[in-house]
Amino acid sequence: MKLSLEAENKTFGGHYQVHSHWGESTNCNMVFSIFLPPQSEVKKLPVLIWLSGLTCTEENFRIKAGVQRYATEAGIIVVSPDTSPRGEGVPDDPDYGFGQGASFYLDATQEPWSEHFNMYSYILKDLLSILESNFPTDMKRVGIFGHSMGGHGALTIAFKNPELFKSVSAFSPICAPTKAPWGENAFTRYLGEDTSLWQDYDACDLVRTKGWSSDILVDQGDDDEYLTDYLKPDLLEQACEEKKEFRSS
Amino acid sequence: MKLSLEAENKTFGGHYQVHSHWGESTNCNMVFSIFLPPQSEVKKLPVLIWLSGLTCTEENFRIKAGVQRYATEAGIIVVSPDTSPRGEGVPDDPDYGFGQGASFYLDATQEPWSEHFNMYSYILKDLLSILESNFPTDMKRVGIFGHSMGGHGALTIAFKNPELFKSVSAFSPICAPTKAPWGENAFTRYLGEDTSLWQDYDACDLVRTKGWSSDILVDQGDDDEYLTDYLKPDLLEQACEEKKEFRSS
Repeated sequence: MKLSLEAENKTFGGHYQVHSHWGESTNCNMVFSIFLPPQSEVKKLPVLIWLSGLTCTEENFRIKAGVQRYATEAGIIVVSPDTSPRGEGVPDDPDYGFGQGASFYLDATQEPWSEHFNMYSYILKDLLSILESNFPTDMKRVGIFGHSMGGHGALTIAFKNPELFKSVSAFSPICAPTKAPWGENAFTRYLGEDTSLWQDYDACDLVRTKGWSSDILVDQGDDDEYLTDYLKPDLLEQACEEKKEFRSS
Repeated sequence: MKLSLEAENKTFGGHYQVHSHWGESTNCNMVFSIFLPPQSEVKKLPVLIWLSGLTCTEENFRIKAGVQRYATEAGIIVVSPDTSPRGEGVPDDPDYGFGQGASFYLDATQEPWSEHFNMYSYILKDLLSILESNFPTDMKRVGIFGHSMGGHGALTIAFKNPELFKSVSAFSPICAPTKAPWGENAFTRYLGEDTSLWQDYDACDLVRTKGWSSDILVDQGDDDEYLTDYLKPDLLEQACEEKKEFRSS
């Protein structure tokens, strides 16, 4: 897969790069950021994939998180893909919680979304393949994390693919999208009315059916305005407890 | 002066607040951010004022810089004002380098800018007065720093008011605005055609006439696309050397 380097900045001893490429799963051009700490010049490094939340692009984490300092200290490559397919011919919706910037990291089955909105496959196939082929990555040590909708993405992608991800964590994730307005709206339109199919993208349902063999760190502010109605970390905690794999951290 | 708390977030043990208030110098409502580290609950703390660059608001530094960690470690209050007056009745210009978001931290003398574009006085009078009256600040230990146009603002405001500022530093500052396109355009329209009046807002001219009694830290990337034509740190270095007060850092 051919990468095109769109931008590069030297920072904290390493390089922050922005690449674009054709997304096989999304049928459109895609963009991601990657921070390569200085250690990557001499050896393969573990990788952390960051998934951003509603309305974000690959840029938000790159310019706001200040991850470079920590990535250089720890010797970890950090990658942030876009939150959805974009561009001419990609459908969109005026609702900030649906369409471009709001993929929910799933593979859509409903028209007109199913042609491009396959971010689950994009992360698992396109992105991991690119990371393995083009960068000094130790693909046996890949972790995934994210915020809000990206936290939902990280949790669900990890739970479904424990052989690919060594760690998963999330800031203020949407823990139970099938029981929250953002998810109910998006899943209906991406996946259709059959709610039994939604469970395949709900962290609470997935942890009950598939479990997770190590700690899960969820960092959540107690005074978050979206806590009760949209994020529902209590449901994830409860699901983990039911699975008897919950450990407090 | 009455402050209105617009937003508040708990972060790194302290609080990031956004306040609005009437700006006496700018004749319009103004907004600034302030980070109060936990130490501010028990004692007065030194203050760092950050001035942002072209197109920014008070928000950029608050959400991008990650200053909270350092401010809590060091016990310093950090304040970032807006980069210009704004709102209904405040004139603007389509050029990103002029008008709203591009005050150049001076007191305009030309119509229609002179009614509101008095950010030099706003920082010196309105903001310092607010900090002294409303927050646990040690006003004998105030520093100022900034980026690009804000670096220009920090350097010029400090050089003209050494009794008020204990430190000054800048990232990629516009060091010689009277000899660079951004400054030439803005100064002509804010201050008029008489270029002799421009020197009062040029860091190179000011350091030659007024000096500075301690170190000045300027952090500048060597591969910055604006380095040669717009920023000109070599001219500031030369001016400091001429003043025989330059020390490398």
